[in-house]
Amino acid sequence: MYRNFAIVPQIIFGRGCFNQLDDILRAKRSADGFVVFILDDVFKGAPLEGRVPLHDRDRIIHANVDDEPKTTLIDSLVEQIKGYGAGQPDGIVGIGGGSILDIAKAVSLLLTNPGSSADYQGWDIIEIPGIYKVGIPTLSGTGAEISRTAILTGPEKKLGINSDYTLYDQIVLDPELVSGVPKDQWFYTGMDCYIHDVESLAGTFINQFSKAYGEKSLEMCQQVFLEDHDDAADKLMMASYFGGMSIAYSQVGACHALSYGLSYVLGVHHGIGCCIAFDQLEEFYPEGVKEFRQMMEKHQISLPRGLTASLSDDDMELMITTALNLEPLWENCLGGNWRELMPRDRARKLFERM
Amino acid sequence: MYRNFAIVPQIIFGRGCFNQLDDILRAKRSADGFVVFILDDVFKGAPLEGRVPLHDRDRIIHANVDDEPKTTLIDSLVEQIKGYGAGQPDGIVGIGGGSILDIAKAVSLLLTNPGSSADYQGWDIIEIPGIYKVGIPTLSGTGAEISRTAILTGPEKKLGINSDYTLYDQIVLDPELVSGVPKDQWFYTGMDCYIHDVESLAGTFINQFSKAYGEKSLEMCQQVFLEDHDDAADKLMMASYFGGMSIAYSQVGACHALSYGLSYVLGVHHGIGCCIAFDQLEEFYPEGVKEFRQMMEKHQISLPRGLTASLSDDDMELMITTALNLEPLWENCLGGNWRELMPRDRARKLFERM
Repeated sequence: MYRNFAIVPQIIFGRGCFNQLDDILRAKRSADGFVVFILDDVFKGAPLEGRVPLHDRDRIIHANVDDEPKTTLIDSLVEQIKGYGAGQPDGIVGIGGGSILDIAKAVSLLLTNPGSSADYQGWDIIEIPGIYKVGIPTLSGTGAEISRTAILTGPEKKLGINSDYTLYDQIVLDPELVSGVPKDQWFYTGMDCYIHDVESLAGTFINQFSKAYGEKSLEMCQQVFLEDHDDAADKLMMASYFGGMSIAYSQVGACHALSYGLSYVLGVHHGIGCCIAFDQLEEFYPEGVKEFRQMMEKHQISLPRGLTASLSDDDMELMITTALNLEPLWENCLGGNWRELMPRDRARKLFERM
Repeated sequence: MYRNFAIVPQIIFGRGCFNQLDDILRAKRSADGFVVFILDDVFKGAPLEGRVPLHDRDRIIHANVDDEPKTTLIDSLVEQIKGYGAGQPDGIVGIGGGSILDIAKAVSLLLTNPGSSADYQGWDIIEIPGIYKVGIPTLSGTGAEISRTAILTGPEKKLGINSDYTLYDQIVLDPELVSGVPKDQWFYTGMDCYIHDVESLAGTFINQFSKAYGEKSLEMCQQVFLEDHDDAADKLMMASYFGGMSIAYSQVGACHALSYGLSYVLGVHHGIGCCIAFDQLEEFYPEGVKEFRQMMEKHQISLPRGLTASLSDDDMELMITTALNLEPLWENCLGGNWRELMPRDRARKLFERM
């Protein structure tokens, strides 16, 4: 059985295409309706906020993503929108990095599906389509613009709301929007994509569909991080999109699994968490880790060390459990007998080096 | 202004995934409805026909594509389906090469849009969504599975029904289905993709989105036609899909324009017509033509010659007019001043060499 997978059905790509957002939304607006724009609060008062095509009844929500998105945040945003008393919005537009894109997806779904977002962490639990939603990345590399997941930290776990309904209806890929990103964040988020390509291509699940996307994504990452190109922002935006598409018939691997552990227990952000974990995974991905270190050197990135040094035993156990619970990732990395190959003490040794 | 483009929203890829067609259609079937399968008549009585998941009220139409699809054929198929007296079908499934895929698209659209298919040859004339449609290629290279066009020969012109509604709702990409294709047809259809990548990448319209898809498609074509790979069928199927996607922000060029002239006046099939034209276009695409000749040599393909030798003057004029009417293709190839660079007598000299 192969997966019959859904993809984002409408795409616009190009420098300055953000200016066409008003036209794109026009077709979806009802007479008395409104659109909710969820904007990363780093853009509060910035030129980008002024370019949001706000109509009379529209709302802007500034969301803070200093911490990765929590289910409690989603639930409170949904309450806030319901509290406007204006009925369901015509659309939800997420403008920001992967966290904001995931928040907008989850809010769209929880406006139409009852209960808490924590109830839907898992695979294909959502049964009702969400509100029409548009994703506009201002950071490249997470693949959130194209993925069928909205990754949330809940009371019990860090796990996505995975479903075809989670996909955006429309994405706006404007490479100009990524120009103000701080260098470290640019690097870590780009590495999310690079690592995810390495894991996908080295995995046991790969087929020609995922390989075609993964190989081209990897090549574009190499151009961006090891060479110098005027259109590096365009390339990295496409690398992120292709990287996301390569997951269709594949999976990420050991690095993403371990970084989930770091995030859940220590609150480490996903991109930097992937870098910290990947740097310890030479035994799994020898060529990828070597090249990653060349990229770090070229861009003078130094990773934090000793993150787990003062961790309590309970926290270390929780970190290991979080990572090992991501079974498909380990199976993709190590094959069907991954449990024998990755006992808890091997995972512990990896975490201890981080 | 950038194009906000729609893509086929649901894809399944994998060897043997044709076996999942019944499951895929199940969700779209109504209680008393029926599905129409439009099958290339080369499969009449062949094992593939026996694998079509026929339900009680379903119909199979065997379509002959010895000639390229005409608007009259579409209109008669639509009459035939209406003549069943069973109302609109729940779905139309096209199983075959590019011609069959285009026929199924056009039939889906003309079941819901009034008049003749000839009325809709052009850009964005269709206003009503068609019947749910599934495309299943048994030949790789045309890109018809992913394109927003259904190319038809009408009373006045060879031109596609170009619209977002033309896109398939679902495609089934099963590399096993292409195994029985005769070698010449495999080569010519594959070259449709290769040439289309060369034209797209060399064109003036290209951007990073189209470049990412076009470069990877070209690379996969090179692997298929210049190297030896066990998974060549998988690669060529993905090359075709990527080639089609690369057209999103690009266009084909001189070769496709000239081959339309050959098809319209002489009835030459599209794939072989592209090869015949491309072989004369060294001045436009020097590296591409050189590599194309290596591919011909490796696969011992010899092209027909002297096609236009006995053409009447009127027919030659019509051929030139047909080719030069495809303005966006020439603009992509030669830039805004293409009319000065490609006067009628230059086009005539190219045709005379074919």
